[in-house]
Amino acid sequence: LGRWRRRNAEDTLPHCVDNLHSQGNIGNLAAAAGESDQEFAGMWFADSDVYKTLEAALWELATSPADAGLKDFVDTTTALLARAQQADGYLNSHFTIAAPEKRWLKPDWSHELYCAGHLIQAAVAAGRTGGSPELVAVARRFADLIVERFGPEGVEEVCGHPEIETALAELYRLTGHRPYLDLARRFLDLRGRGLLGPGRFGPVYYQDHVPVRDATEVAGHSVRQLYLLAGMVDVGVETGDRTLLDAAERLWEDVFHTKTYVTGAHGSRHRDEAYGDPYELPPDRAYGETCAAIASFQWNWRLLLATGRARYADEMERALYNAIAPALSADGRHFFYSNPLQLRTGHAGSGEEAAARRLPWYSCACCPPNIARLMASLPGYVATADAGGLQIHLYGDASLDTGVAGRPVRVEMRTDYPWQGRVELTVEDEGGRDEDPWTLALRVPAWCDTYAVSVGGETVDVPVQDGYVRLTRVWAPGTTLVLDLAMPVRRLSAHPRVDAVRGCVALARGPVVYCLEQADLPPGVVLEDVWLDPAAPVEAAHRDDPAGIPVVLTAGGRLAGSGDALYTALDESGPGRETGAPLALTAVPYFLWGNRSEGPMRVWIPLAATG
Amino acid sequence: LGRWRRRNAEDTLPHCVDNLHSQGNIGNLAAAAGESDQEFAGMWFADSDVYKTLEAALWELATSPADAGLKDFVDTTTALLARAQQADGYLNSHFTIAAPEKRWLKPDWSHELYCAGHLIQAAVAAGRTGGSPELVAVARRFADLIVERFGPEGVEEVCGHPEIETALAELYRLTGHRPYLDLARRFLDLRGRGLLGPGRFGPVYYQDHVPVRDATEVAGHSVRQLYLLAGMVDVGVETGDRTLLDAAERLWEDVFHTKTYVTGAHGSRHRDEAYGDPYELPPDRAYGETCAAIASFQWNWRLLLATGRARYADEMERALYNAIAPALSADGRHFFYSNPLQLRTGHAGSGEEAAARRLPWYSCACCPPNIARLMASLPGYVATADAGGLQIHLYGDASLDTGVAGRPVRVEMRTDYPWQGRVELTVEDEGGRDEDPWTLALRVPAWCDTYAVSVGGETVDVPVQDGYVRLTRVWAPGTTLVLDLAMPVRRLSAHPRVDAVRGCVALARGPVVYCLEQADLPPGVVLEDVWLDPAAPVEAAHRDDPAGIPVVLTAGGRLAGSGDALYTALDESGPGRETGAPLALTAVPYFLWGNRSEGPMRVWIPLAATG
Repeated sequence: LGRWRRRNAEDTLPHCVDNLHSQGNIGNLAAAAGESDQEFAGMWFADSDVYKTLEAALWELATSPADAGLKDFVDTTTALLARAQQADGYLNSHFTIAAPEKRWLKPDWSHELYCAGHLIQAAVAAGRTGGSPELVAVARRFADLIVERFGPEGVEEVCGHPEIETALAELYRLTGHRPYLDLARRFLDLRGRGLLGPGRFGPVYYQDHVPVRDATEVAGHSVRQLYLLAGMVDVGVETGDRTLLDAAERLWEDVFHTKTYVTGAHGSRHRDEAYGDPYELPPDRAYGETCAAIASFQWNWRLLLATGRARYADEMERALYNAIAPALSADGRHFFYSNPLQLRTGHAGSGEEAAARRLPWYSCACCPPNIARLMASLPGYVATADAGGLQIHLYGDASLDTGVAGRPVRVEMRTDYPWQGRVELTVEDEGGRDEDPWTLALRVPAWCDTYAVSVGGETVDVPVQDGYVRLTRVWAPGTTLVLDLAMPVRRLSAHPRVDAVRGCVALARGPVVYCLEQADLPPGVVLEDVWLDPAAPVEAAHRDDPAGIPVVLTAGGRLAGSGDALYTALDESGPGRETGAPLALTAVPYFLWGNRSEGPMRVWIPLAATG
Repeated sequence: LGRWRRRNAEDTLPHCVDNLHSQGNIGNLAAAAGESDQEFAGMWFADSDVYKTLEAALWELATSPADAGLKDFVDTTTALLARAQQADGYLNSHFTIAAPEKRWLKPDWSHELYCAGHLIQAAVAAGRTGGSPELVAVARRFADLIVERFGPEGVEEVCGHPEIETALAELYRLTGHRPYLDLARRFLDLRGRGLLGPGRFGPVYYQDHVPVRDATEVAGHSVRQLYLLAGMVDVGVETGDRTLLDAAERLWEDVFHTKTYVTGAHGSRHRDEAYGDPYELPPDRAYGETCAAIASFQWNWRLLLATGRARYADEMERALYNAIAPALSADGRHFFYSNPLQLRTGHAGSGEEAAARRLPWYSCACCPPNIARLMASLPGYVATADAGGLQIHLYGDASLDTGVAGRPVRVEMRTDYPWQGRVELTVEDEGGRDEDPWTLALRVPAWCDTYAVSVGGETVDVPVQDGYVRLTRVWAPGTTLVLDLAMPVRRLSAHPRVDAVRGCVALARGPVVYCLEQADLPPGVVLEDVWLDPAAPVEAAHRDDPAGIPVVLTAGGRLAGSGDALYTALDESGPGRETGAPLALTAVPYFLWGNRSEGPMRVWIPLAATG
């Protein structure tokens, strides 16, 4: 995780800033400020890319306050936003320079409140890190205008793209200003009443088909659904409205039992970037939008905070390693928008929405800066603290400076996770001498059946309770602790209703899902003809290749023979699947695919008939 | 086939005419004629629905000349078209009343030549049947304008939606006017040079990415691809340009070996109504647009005429019974636009493009009148005649009046095909006394392994040559002949690269593909939990239900148990598929599904593990 954050700071974030300039996003704001004649460039919600990059920069500055370039980007962009902001607080370059007559007129389509939401989230990062009081002021001016227009005395409207709900709740947390929270709740209350109209894809597309508290299944555009769910948890927690939390957890049950890819990706359909029917999870046409994985990560984080249940942290981990990380190239400067679990031989990958390789930028560039803000904010998701102690949810090299029971506690974490399951911790608690015990909780992921814990070199027998091992003691300064999570290779199969991967397995080790890539096959072998031999062992092999692929899996395969006929009649003896020539297979971590050469890939591998 | 034609005449065609009025298509033309103030209604290519319905009416009038209502529709609509036509010959209600300033400006999008093509095809039907010389005149006026604008002295442009190419070649056949054929060829020559620009989905979408003679695989929007291929065959045949036929047959090899559903449907993607990658054939998200199946039927017909190869007639039959017929309800007044091979439990079917049931009409109503014109023209596809004899390609009750070697020949055909494989023929050849032999060729479909032929009650031993049994003799008047095609139930499996149906079989008998429907399952059983027992026999059962479902298949099934978990790790003993409780299964013809109650359906049935 630390390496990811550094790559984000050194490569992804500067790349995003460069593109905000070259693609015209900054120019749009300059034109809105009256300082440029540029025609509006890009998508009508292009401002949101600026806000996400700002948010990323602010989180990163909290870790690297000496980064002068980043500080300059924040300061100059904030000043530009202040100049582009209209006198009444309105801020949106598209509706300022390209379509002023349409301001607020198309809530189903305009993304005005969506953009405002990302401005607010950047401001929340500014406020929490102390990075830019000016940005907080800009956002509050706009937020106040929004309260005026959409609040209890205002119009009854909602935004076609949810995002403002969670943003306003967060702004309330930052400022304590209750109208922000009340408006977030109002937006949730008004949703599902058909206020947005049918639109091109019907009201389900933007979750306007059913009141949020009555929904029983996720539906429609997956990013919109997931941001909405994040907002529901935020408002539920802050207002004590249990019905919102109940609905969010009900939809969690639905989506994670019937509509989530084995990678943690969301969204099965390209046409409307939407969830499919239950168990409709095609690997080749998986949409798995990067933004949806980020939204899922953020929603699960909110549920984790609200409930303390480990299953939410498990999903954060799954999404992080297998649905967010795959979107980014090893060089940190190329991105996937959709994250399919299979790329076929002969794939025509010219379309951005089904690209055969990561692209440096997108005409709809929502995903790249979203990755940047997620990666920059990663340190904030590793652990939580409360009066009773410290809970560690994600593992990676980290120094956790926090407070327990009112006094500072530091925990040093060292690990090769996710390649090794061994996590070494050193607890520095100056107050530990006071014989004041507290509980250190360490998550044992659901994928892990066998683990060991030792304290000061002594093995201790501690059960998993609700997904965590919990050690309550007076922590003498410098206490060392080792958590060892066994990481055997797992062969995963899907629920039989998932027709698209029948007869296939996915390989996983620890939190990491693996895949086969053309790059590891002999010349001339077509990936679609490769089967996994279920009788052959699958083993992990560590490589001295920390910057590349540290762990691969080796397996035994079979090469299918196949004729030309697309459909053939089975003879009466039943379906025989020929067992073809043996073949040694190498699987690589899915999140690292596509970094060597362009070519076919698959996560789900067909099983050869045994014997 | 005869029953289908009658239903078309009695229900579908009048239903289409009604909708042309109620949906505003006729009103658009009235407005273009200056006889109405109606604002333009429907899609910008709404005129094409009128033309297709006209074409259907004209084919039907050739069979039923006494249908006064139909004759009136043809005459009044033709007169209206003549009044709506502009002085220079231009005819398009959208670009006359809604966007006159945009005439000819957006060839990638406007469908102006597409609409003209359907006008011309209606005129060809008028000319061939003698049904409306006025319509031929209207179409020729527009065609002449098109030649003037787009011909050798004109602009270098093509239409984003192919259709004009085959239409102009057909108009040349009708009129002998060479400039029509030359322009059809010019449109083919100009395609694939990027003249259309990238558009929303890239040049592949409208087959403008590669010159038509150089294409090696079908790609993009499937209806456009298939109409284009029909035009390539037409122009190739008429100009003697072998390179066009070679390209068409090359693409046939591609599409029927890697991109066609077991039903004969085309198009795997909803997003751009397009072909997928090779072997990307998801049953649940099959697009299988009705118009694509009709286009495939027409393309295969042209290849059959050009080559005489039975494989093209086989594909016509497959498409007719399993990709065109399913789009129409038993009542002839409800339609599918897309024809998926699986409808899941929990399918949210509100969108027209993925409707859970046939709808009475569509906002994009290309398919319903296309079915009407295909059904009305069916008699023309049954057989061909040449100097050497008569070739029968499709089986059904029919009286074939034709000519062989310059004298009239009549063949009466009686059969319960496709429910029975027995076809009884009586040859009436008044000239047969002259001892002038000719050849009667009867297609033996590729699905048929066993057949018998008898003449005058005597079994004759005649081999299949190139897909036909050929009987050369002097046909004494009243010679009776029986072709008996064995129709055992077939269990079809797909090429192993078709991941989406791995471990499944489709059931077929004769030319008809079967499916399981919720309506035939016990209450509470979820269709997705039903497996086929490979050890149990599958048998055909005839029902005394000629208007409903004449033949069902009975099979043995197993009811899968399945937990809640979406993904589970296999234990070391390998993948065990539980064998669940036994269950009697009834499969019904796929083309008759959805006529009893709305509910889940599947063509591909998972196989339970044996034993």
